[in-house]
Amino acid sequence: MVAAEDPESFFDTAPPLRDAGAVAARLQDFLARNSRASPEGGGRRRRIVCVTSGGTTVPLEQRCVRYIDNFSSGHRGAASTEYFLKAGYAVIFVHRRGSCQPFCRFISDDSFLQFFDVTTDLKLQVAESQSTVVKKAIGDYRQAIEGGSLLKLPFTTIFEYLQLLKMVATSMSSLGPHGMFYLAAAVSDFYVPWDSMAKHKIQSAGGPLDMRLSQVPKMLSVLRNQWAPLAFCISFKLETDSEILVQKAEMALTKYKMNVVVANLLATYKEKVVIVSSGESNTIQRCNKDEDLEERIIKLLEKNHSKYIYSSTGGCAQQE
Amino acid sequence: MVAAEDPESFFDTAPPLRDAGAVAARLQDFLARNSRASPEGGGRRRRIVCVTSGGTTVPLEQRCVRYIDNFSSGHRGAASTEYFLKAGYAVIFVHRRGSCQPFCRFISDDSFLQFFDVTTDLKLQVAESQSTVVKKAIGDYRQAIEGGSLLKLPFTTIFEYLQLLKMVATSMSSLGPHGMFYLAAAVSDFYVPWDSMAKHKIQSAGGPLDMRLSQVPKMLSVLRNQWAPLAFCISFKLETDSEILVQKAEMALTKYKMNVVVANLLATYKEKVVIVSSGESNTIQRCNKDEDLEERIIKLLEKNHSKYIYSSTGGCAQQE
Repeated sequence: MVAAEDPESFFDTAPPLRDAGAVAARLQDFLARNSRASPEGGGRRRRIVCVTSGGTTVPLEQRCVRYIDNFSSGHRGAASTEYFLKAGYAVIFVHRRGSCQPFCRFISDDSFLQFFDVTTDLKLQVAESQSTVVKKAIGDYRQAIEGGSLLKLPFTTIFEYLQLLKMVATSMSSLGPHGMFYLAAAVSDFYVPWDSMAKHKIQSAGGPLDMRLSQVPKMLSVLRNQWAPLAFCISFKLETDSEILVQKAEMALTKYKMNVVVANLLATYKEKVVIVSSGESNTIQRCNKDEDLEERIIKLLEKNHSKYIYSSTGGCAQQE
Repeated sequence: MVAAEDPESFFDTAPPLRDAGAVAARLQDFLARNSRASPEGGGRRRRIVCVTSGGTTVPLEQRCVRYIDNFSSGHRGAASTEYFLKAGYAVIFVHRRGSCQPFCRFISDDSFLQFFDVTTDLKLQVAESQSTVVKKAIGDYRQAIEGGSLLKLPFTTIFEYLQLLKMVATSMSSLGPHGMFYLAAAVSDFYVPWDSMAKHKIQSAGGPLDMRLSQVPKMLSVLRNQWAPLAFCISFKLETDSEILVQKAEMALTKYKMNVVVANLLATYKEKVVIVSSGESNTIQRCNKDEDLEERIIKLLEKNHSKYIYSSTGGCAQQE
């Protein structure tokens, strides 16, 4: 293995996470509050899921002007977060800065200003047509934030993402099988190690540019084997070629010992996914445009998670 | 010159712009409406500026999952558009999809939901604290759109950007010196020619990834020499190294025959720019955090543009 592709050397050479102490404190606080058995839940232990969302960037220069990005709006992660909260999970939403946010999915670009009317007496009000959807979104959002069941942690680069994931995963390992990882972020496969990166903006005068990118270490293995060995883990496979999709999903299942792999094609990811787990595969397809595919994905995963907790605790879990 | 770096072969091999016909029609309509002398302007010919804004992407695969991106929030272009409108220009805002929009600069990420309050009788209203700023933004935005003085054209990739710029520039050439180009977009210097690009997602199993990127042809020369030879042209230089900044700006001025180059450093671009034109350079610095640097940049450029029109028309322009 080349040095750059080894997990330890990745973390050793990565630029340190800003405000790491403050982030760790918020995380600990969130976990302490949510991992207590709540009276409303009938003493049932609360489940906590870490949802990762959006694409990571790979800086090509230390003072970053150019970077490689992975396509991802973050819509899947944001929608899934809403349904996890609805299903009673506490959610740690590890998301790309600027990507789609839970309860804000209906907003795009500059549609913002279309939500308002200015009345004749120069008062500002929400446009009648938008009122219902905005009201529901605000209600749900405030409930999640004020109820303390949603923690949002942002990242931009692959360095930030993997350091955050490591921090969250090692903190969540104490939850055992009650912890879930729903790894929907589009993580770069290749990167430029920080210490071999150009310090200043690459100048364009010198003809074509040759770049050598190293492989990002496969952190799914490290998550499974070291960070949170008992957690219920779901990873995603996005491909553009339908020929190799399910085969690659099954490989990931075996190789990284995931519990579930959600497989989708770039061309149809909004309409259809294949949920691959050991011994079975379920295709989930959207029936109409107003339906969120994520609603059914989360229902299925919640069921699988229950079975997993039951079997992990030798069948004596408190009423899962 | 390598084939990929020649402007003609760039356009010949680029994937064609979607809806090019419809975009061209909107553009023609906008130019026809705004280039007429208006009675309000005292018969003065209206000036039209093309503002480009945000970063371009370079796809690494034809069915795009990965791409190289240039850092740019689009804040400068969006703010400048507001001040150009205020100064009486009609603006063609050629912007990166999802980047900062004129009159929406105060909104970030999920701050959207913070603009609303739900009253006790379950009515939705704009939070008192936000009301003034939102009301002004909506008023200005509607005035620009309804008055027909703002045309927004989005792009994502370098292929879309350069095809749009070519279309706008050749259409604007009839305006002669009354047309302005304010090229604030962060345009990629390197790209992968479409026909040498991987069709499917690059697989990560094969060790490190070697990439060869070609130089993007220098379109500033083509804009100046062929597309709109008489237009007033402003380009931008963003560098991370202060040592080479002004020198690079002066080079651009001479090499591409720009009228003005706005030079800025990544670390301080919000506080300070240097406006370089033939024979002089002016540093513009922000005095306080609430001030928009763009207000003063546009004032200076408007003055320079007036002088340029006056000298281009042999001193007999109608009251510029």
